[in-house]
Amino acid sequence: MKRIGILTSGGDAPGMNAAIRAVVRKAVFEGAEVVGVRHGYAGLISGEFQPLSISSVGDIIHRGGTILQTARSPEFMKPEGQQQAITNLSDQGIEGLIVVGGDGSFRGAQALARAGIKAIGLPGTIDNDIAGTESTIGFDTAVNTAVEAIDRIRDTATSHERAFVLEVMGRDAGFIALAAGLAGGAESILIPEVQTTMDEVCERLVRGRDRGKRHSLIVVAEGFAPGMQVGEEVRRRTGYDTRVTILGHIQRGGSPTALDRNIASQMGARAVDLLLQDQANLMVGVAGGRTVDVPLDEVVGRKKAVDRATYQLALTLSI
Amino acid sequence: MKRIGILTSGGDAPGMNAAIRAVVRKAVFEGAEVVGVRHGYAGLISGEFQPLSISSVGDIIHRGGTILQTARSPEFMKPEGQQQAITNLSDQGIEGLIVVGGDGSFRGAQALARAGIKAIGLPGTIDNDIAGTESTIGFDTAVNTAVEAIDRIRDTATSHERAFVLEVMGRDAGFIALAAGLAGGAESILIPEVQTTMDEVCERLVRGRDRGKRHSLIVVAEGFAPGMQVGEEVRRRTGYDTRVTILGHIQRGGSPTALDRNIASQMGARAVDLLLQDQANLMVGVAGGRTVDVPLDEVVGRKKAVDRATYQLALTLSI
Amino acid sequence: MKRIGILTSGGDAPGMNAAIRAVVRKAVFEGAEVVGVRHGYAGLISGEFQPLSISSVGDIIHRGGTILQTARSPEFMKPEGQQQAITNLSDQGIEGLIVVGGDGSFRGAQALARAGIKAIGLPGTIDNDIAGTESTIGFDTAVNTAVEAIDRIRDTATSHERAFVLEVMGRDAGFIALAAGLAGGAESILIPEVQTTMDEVCERLVRGRDRGKRHSLIVVAEGFAPGMQVGEEVRRRTGYDTRVTILGHIQRGGSPTALDRNIASQMGARAVDLLLQDQANLMVGVAGGRTVDVPLDEVVGRKKAVDRATYQLALTLSI
Amino acid sequence: MKRIGILTSGGDAPGMNAAIRAVVRKAVFEGAEVVGVRHGYAGLISGEFQPLSISSVGDIIHRGGTILQTARSPEFMKPEGQQQAITNLSDQGIEGLIVVGGDGSFRGAQALARAGIKAIGLPGTIDNDIAGTESTIGFDTAVNTAVEAIDRIRDTATSHERAFVLEVMGRDAGFIALAAGLAGGAESILIPEVQTTMDEVCERLVRGRDRGKRHSLIVVAEGFAPGMQVGEEVRRRTGYDTRVTILGHIQRGGSPTALDRNIASQMGARAVDLLLQDQANLMVGVAGGRTVDVPLDEVVGRKKAVDRATYQLALTLSI
Repeated sequence: MKRIGILTSGGDAPGMNAAIRAVVRKAVFEGAEVVGVRHGYAGLISGEFQPLSISSVGDIIHRGGTILQTARSPEFMKPEGQQQAITNLSDQGIEGLIVVGGDGSFRGAQALARAGIKAIGLPGTIDNDIAGTESTIGFDTAVNTAVEAIDRIRDTATSHERAFVLEVMGRDAGFIALAAGLAGGAESILIPEVQTTMDEVCERLVRGRDRGKRHSLIVVAEGFAPGMQVGEEVRRRTGYDTRVTILGHIQRGGSPTALDRNIASQMGARAVDLLLQDQANLMVGVAGGRTVDVPLDEVVGRKKAVDRATYQLALTLSI
Repeated sequence: MKRIGILTSGGDAPGMNAAIRAVVRKAVFEGAEVVGVRHGYAGLISGEFQPLSISSVGDIIHRGGTILQTARSPEFMKPEGQQQAITNLSDQGIEGLIVVGGDGSFRGAQALARAGIKAIGLPGTIDNDIAGTESTIGFDTAVNTAVEAIDRIRDTATSHERAFVLEVMGRDAGFIALAAGLAGGAESILIPEVQTTMDEVCERLVRGRDRGKRHSLIVVAEGFAPGMQVGEEVRRRTGYDTRVTILGHIQRGGSPTALDRNIASQMGARAVDLLLQDQANLMVGVAGGRTVDVPLDEVVGRKKAVDRATYQLALTLSI
Repeated sequence: MKRIGILTSGGDAPGMNAAIRAVVRKAVFEGAEVVGVRHGYAGLISGEFQPLSISSVGDIIHRGGTILQTARSPEFMKPEGQQQAITNLSDQGIEGLIVVGGDGSFRGAQALARAGIKAIGLPGTIDNDIAGTESTIGFDTAVNTAVEAIDRIRDTATSHERAFVLEVMGRDAGFIALAAGLAGGAESILIPEVQTTMDEVCERLVRGRDRGKRHSLIVVAEGFAPGMQVGEEVRRRTGYDTRVTILGHIQRGGSPTALDRNIASQMGARAVDLLLQDQANLMVGVAGGRTVDVPLDEVVGRKKAVDRATYQLALTLSI
Repeated sequence: MKRIGILTSGGDAPGMNAAIRAVVRKAVFEGAEVVGVRHGYAGLISGEFQPLSISSVGDIIHRGGTILQTARSPEFMKPEGQQQAITNLSDQGIEGLIVVGGDGSFRGAQALARAGIKAIGLPGTIDNDIAGTESTIGFDTAVNTAVEAIDRIRDTATSHERAFVLEVMGRDAGFIALAAGLAGGAESILIPEVQTTMDEVCERLVRGRDRGKRHSLIVVAEGFAPGMQVGEEVRRRTGYDTRVTILGHIQRGGSPTALDRNIASQMGARAVDLLLQDQANLMVGVAGGRTVDVPLDEVVGRKKAVDRATYQLALTLSI
């Protein structure tokens, strides 16, 4: 294989640039070329290709976002769109494609694979809801961003009854909420995977306050309920003065943590190795500090579940 | 004067601890004693006094919040409450009182002054809306927190039409929004002091997008309109995919910046100097890097105005 | 078991407080008591015990250092010292002891174990050189601190010949240097485990510069050579203007990352579980995101080796 | 004036990019063009000119370093070098030149001014040692970087005798050391402007330790003495275990603080205003939150003095 393509797709995740850099430099080191595709699958259809050299990925390892950008691509859902993409890849002489993204992005990779394109997926999403890998590129950074927010909120202790609500990302998955809530010592963690009533939440708040806690912090994943709504409910039921923070896209940006850069680098290099060995239709994940290769078919559509023991631990430790 | 009291009042502001530390250490250095009042004016009434020594303010200069905590005090609004506070101060042998807080806190200091208590105010509020001082304790930290949020949001550039809205604090004043918007390069800055129509905002967005801008960021002070509402309006009018971040109390916490620690230290030491010289009913502000003494009567009720030239500059530079 | 002791020993590591908090809260939740030992083994001998309650570990999860402090204890090396420690533990009714520290600290735990004390070790050291665990408490924070330093140095690109040297911790192990060098994109990584001549280092620098690199950064573990000496050598051989940064104890402090807090919390809770099950002489490590129990005898004296493939990857990617 | 040139010179300082952005956008807004000169005076001689448009300064406000880079230029010291620079400026149709840098850079501007080039200086140096301005671009960021380092070191308290030494930049001036030492609560601050004997330093250390201080931190400006030497002296005289951190170029990098971005933006816009009004040979400084125009002749060669009262305050507050 002489020519490898790479695209980033789905929501931005810090560390995607480190993955791009690793793919390019590893490939060049091995004697292959890399072509970047801008704007994800949309660019694959519209033909936004750009050769990537060793120096074009210099000075990007520490930058948030992705130099290749992402985009939505309703066209790629249709057979004609996919056909155009395949034609373009062929015209460019791209024999293998590395897709950095989440579940939806991997479905796209599968579609291309069915048409004979050798595709490798790298899990790039802050949500960490990808099966077959311990962590996804961007997750560690997003969690640290949320924890920093919690730390700041904790500083503002008051003597009167007050509760803080922090809404973090996670439409279907509570990974960010759980990891940030555990690390931040949040009193309640509301995630889509665990049913919790507002009665329970308010009881915990009042109990903590009665035991002398000066903070009452609820971390809620957007997929459980909007933070504003949770704040309103708590106010109504407890009479507490309730303050809401909605982190939003802050979680998608920022310079990636060391961990996110390093797993992205390892995954990127491994993806090149696999393509050069003519292997494909795999996702490169990490487990125990090393890369693991998992068939895309075993990954797509199988959401990873949050660890219930960790959820229980977070509650136990924040009493 | 042998005994000085100190309390923090109103919303938390990073740097209040540096002010407390400076008051205590400077006073002890000059041979006086310091008594801390917990929970602001409420603690003045309920008698929450604690002697503060050199070591009791060790290791606090870098901490957000206030070790003396703040509280609301409806009781202090009434004559009986104030009378009780005065009796308590007299019982404690406290001859001079240093109040760290905002406009409302200074009104309390004035009330005590009318009853013969020597009071000095230190401007401690993230809002920076206090007349007679270039900056208030906590403002610089809050602005940097907001700018960090903007920087992270900027990382997540996308190719499709999207606008970001960041709601920052400021019920009556746009200082945080303006300083953060200028430093962050925000396309629009919505503050209570400047009338802006949503038409203008949306026009700027579309114009910027047409010129190739990949970011469209609106910073809005909560006193202008809720961030959620601004986001909704922009979505409705432009069809853009709009994402809202509400910073909330994140802005009140965090380790204070060097500037906030240093002006707090200078102000605290100056307040002690003034009381030891039997001067009172003054606020200690900063101007040009040095402390200035301003009569409390010239400060209270006179909100500082944002600089229109700076507002204009921010718009000019974000074209 | 009704009463558990805990001490922190060796160099400070961010996350030790999270471990203490987890031990206390988990133990109380399970109906046991916890006694903290101040100043490590020295305090065990001199009898510095303090009961720890749920609230005494409130608001510490995000703080660097350790509330129990560490200390050197030459006395504990002698049989009389150990005998005194055992007597004290017995007097306090402490049936199990949790030791947070590194290799030397675990040797102390083994000595106590031989005398019948049930001991559990938690790997707490920024160096990550403990066998039987993927990561140690404090390592992730130290690496991120070093990476932040690298990022800042990278900003100051110049056109004339210049090389930067960053000395990080690691007397016998290059884990911090390797992880930070990979994440920071350093041109050279000098670690005790890999022999590298200054000729090779300088050749890499010159080659990189010739290819147009604007940065030339060498990360050196203190155990390889002092940073000052490396800088001097590079200057002498290449004629480059060389600038040296020595991070020193900056790496030991700072608020722990989410990962360090979370593994510390998991390990602390697991240690309590083990003691309550009357298990002992184990270290609780992490692997693949979960805790693992490893006999102390398999850990002590067996330094973990850095991954050569990762070292090679770092060099490949920084061409 | 239709065409303005801009260059950055001397050591990098965070905020230089914000100044470049402000100059370009303000100039374009006013109908003028801007040409950037790469590599400072060296590029002026070798002819490294590049037109700067509104979009070429997009997304740089938050980046450390300078997109125009700096360089040394021994050639510019000679008449022939200056003559070549003037010829090049004339060939490019550049009528006014904005120079961002320190004292040495302003001397260059004066030399050009004597040859009829309209020059405006902007104080861009982390050292803050420029007369006529309250603060220089980069100073606030450098101080906050040093304070963050101090905060981290403070976390690692120990029970045995230990002292920390932090070497910060400042060959001739102690501004960074003083501001960081005050904000960080350092026990001793060693700056070129104040004679201090090692006896005094060690006495303070021992006295503080005797009073129960757990930290002993000495901040030393490189111009007073090398940090390593100070550490060695303290070790020799007190027997303390002494640890040294040398910040080095970390202080020159990093994302600029809000303050540095905002004064850079104000100064840059003002410089354009002045040139468009045909004014020149001025430096634009800041005082009291606003820009001030000062003749370059009153600035060059007149180092600003650190405030002795602030120095005394720092010592008083760290008892």
